[in-house]
Amino acid sequence: MKHLKVFKKEFDTALHSYLDGKSQFFNKTVPHGGEMIECIQEFIRYGGKRFRPALFHYAYESFSKTNDLNSIQFSFIFELFQSFVLIHDDIIDHAKLRRGNPTIHAKYGMEMGILAGDFALTLADELFMDIIYASNFSQSIKKPSINLYNQYKQELLIGQYLDSKHLGSPEKIMLLKTAQYSFARPVVFGLLLASVSKEIIKKWEAWMTKAGITFQLMDDYEGVMGNESKTGKSVSSDTEEGKNTLIVELFKKKANKRELDRFHSFFGKHSMTKEDVNWYKNKIQEKLIDIEIKSRISSSCKELLQELHTTLGAHTDLHILAQEILDHIQMI
Amino acid sequence: MKHLKVFKKEFDTALHSYLDGKSQFFNKTVPHGGEMIECIQEFIRYGGKRFRPALFHYAYESFSKTNDLNSIQFSFIFELFQSFVLIHDDIIDHAKLRRGNPTIHAKYGMEMGILAGDFALTLADELFMDIIYASNFSQSIKKPSINLYNQYKQELLIGQYLDSKHLGSPEKIMLLKTAQYSFARPVVFGLLLASVSKEIIKKWEAWMTKAGITFQLMDDYEGVMGNESKTGKSVSSDTEEGKNTLIVELFKKKANKRELDRFHSFFGKHSMTKEDVNWYKNKIQEKLIDIEIKSRISSSCKELLQELHTTLGAHTDLHILAQEILDHIQMI
Repeated sequence: MKHLKVFKKEFDTALHSYLDGKSQFFNKTVPHGGEMIECIQEFIRYGGKRFRPALFHYAYESFSKTNDLNSIQFSFIFELFQSFVLIHDDIIDHAKLRRGNPTIHAKYGMEMGILAGDFALTLADELFMDIIYASNFSQSIKKPSINLYNQYKQELLIGQYLDSKHLGSPEKIMLLKTAQYSFARPVVFGLLLASVSKEIIKKWEAWMTKAGITFQLMDDYEGVMGNESKTGKSVSSDTEEGKNTLIVELFKKKANKRELDRFHSFFGKHSMTKEDVNWYKNKIQEKLIDIEIKSRISSSCKELLQELHTTLGAHTDLHILAQEILDHIQMI
Repeated sequence: MKHLKVFKKEFDTALHSYLDGKSQFFNKTVPHGGEMIECIQEFIRYGGKRFRPALFHYAYESFSKTNDLNSIQFSFIFELFQSFVLIHDDIIDHAKLRRGNPTIHAKYGMEMGILAGDFALTLADELFMDIIYASNFSQSIKKPSINLYNQYKQELLIGQYLDSKHLGSPEKIMLLKTAQYSFARPVVFGLLLASVSKEIIKKWEAWMTKAGITFQLMDDYEGVMGNESKTGKSVSSDTEEGKNTLIVELFKKKANKRELDRFHSFFGKHSMTKEDVNWYKNKIQEKLIDIEIKSRISSSCKELLQELHTTLGAHTDLHILAQEILDHIQMI
């Protein structure tokens, strides 16, 4: 994904330069005052593809006629908010590792995990308020942006809540946590600030929502059936966390009493053996669940590709990024 | 404190009516979507004096000539932010009880403690943005308000961080966590939005900062020497948490090696016996630390009273509330 890699490099340099300035400011104001920010920077360096900031950035840059917004700076908001979400999520999940590195609470203690997460949220909010306030956007853009931002934050937290309490269907959680939060909303934000018409925003929103759901299907599939050394994603952690995915739902429908008993002996239990992992994989194949999911992903990708080149019109940077997302999904 | 009691009743009714509406909205949007808000409401019902919202409200109402702000609604921000702070603080401190009730994470699990705290912050932010955006305030008020709000949040988190990591002097933490956060900033906010001159704002800020430090001295004193049945405040929890107060600093200066050894056997350890509590109390008295602190509190209160009736000018509702705070401090 060349486009995204180029963006990530530019984005990370700018974000860390911004955060360096912030932490220096707070360290000057109060000794140790910048340590939470340094911790957030360490977390951001752990990795990640920068999907959300890139989607925002290219949506805005592809369609804005005035370009009076520093869209790289605005895109920091998505990465800072995501850091807040993940740092807290790791505490909730009792996770010890994140992308091969120790999680913040595991390395620096619970107080750092909670407070650095909180601080990342206040940094995102500060950027949002400062940029929207200082901008020349008309009232008809400012007010919907404020509403969208608050909705963005609260919807994600509701998704996290439903997920952590094992409430709600996999579809609903996929919609809130991935399709809207990671794909549709950043694009809608960029298009809104670029003064794009409601009609075109709706088309992109629908496309990104569908792409997000397909992406999540792929991610959930890899979380059980994937090749760990190829994807870097554990094939037991989703199951150990008791993550309610479409695979789980299909398995529960097709399994008999004895299979369900064995399933519940490791699902959500943090004690999955190698034998459990292999047994579960085999059952998924035996019941043709893997084929069902792969074919859903494949037909969804075909539709998305078709729509990208017809209903979504002219060729822009956002189209290139959308194509990269499809390529990434189809890699499985 | 009659004035504050009257305010609390009116404030709580309005706040819960607002939050009822919010949780109903989210429950309609997604099943269980409003549960985090219901949890925040339960926490708010546990108690508290509503100092911060009252200080904001009376500062604004005492000085505004236009009264075009719904200052009760704006004052929700301070209580929602405080709920966020306390719910997360209870997790950091491993606290099981808050005002005699189970803490949120103890009752509903870690995920609820973290996420309901996060959600309370997003509710405070949403109110702030909506009210400031919709208001008729001039640019010369809007921009400083946004700066003040972001500073308010980040300063408090830095105070929490220094406190939890036992970094920084008791004076610095008192200044950040109590004097500025709980006393000075809410008043400065009210006066700023009421278009009060910078000169008068500075006078109130100085007064409230001093009152806040004196209040904290009293609170720290009660946390070791107080009468539990009278104050409702435990006389061991501050010491068990390893809270770095002026009492601790004075004790460390005046204690000999053997006394310091015994002190460190229970300080910050969550295992203080009744004998430790009494031994520590006696040592504080023996070394005249209690008298030193009481006399600091008493002379500070005299100065504050004098200033309230001279340099702070005419008699307003804010003066009455300030007087109530002094009365409360002098109760020890």
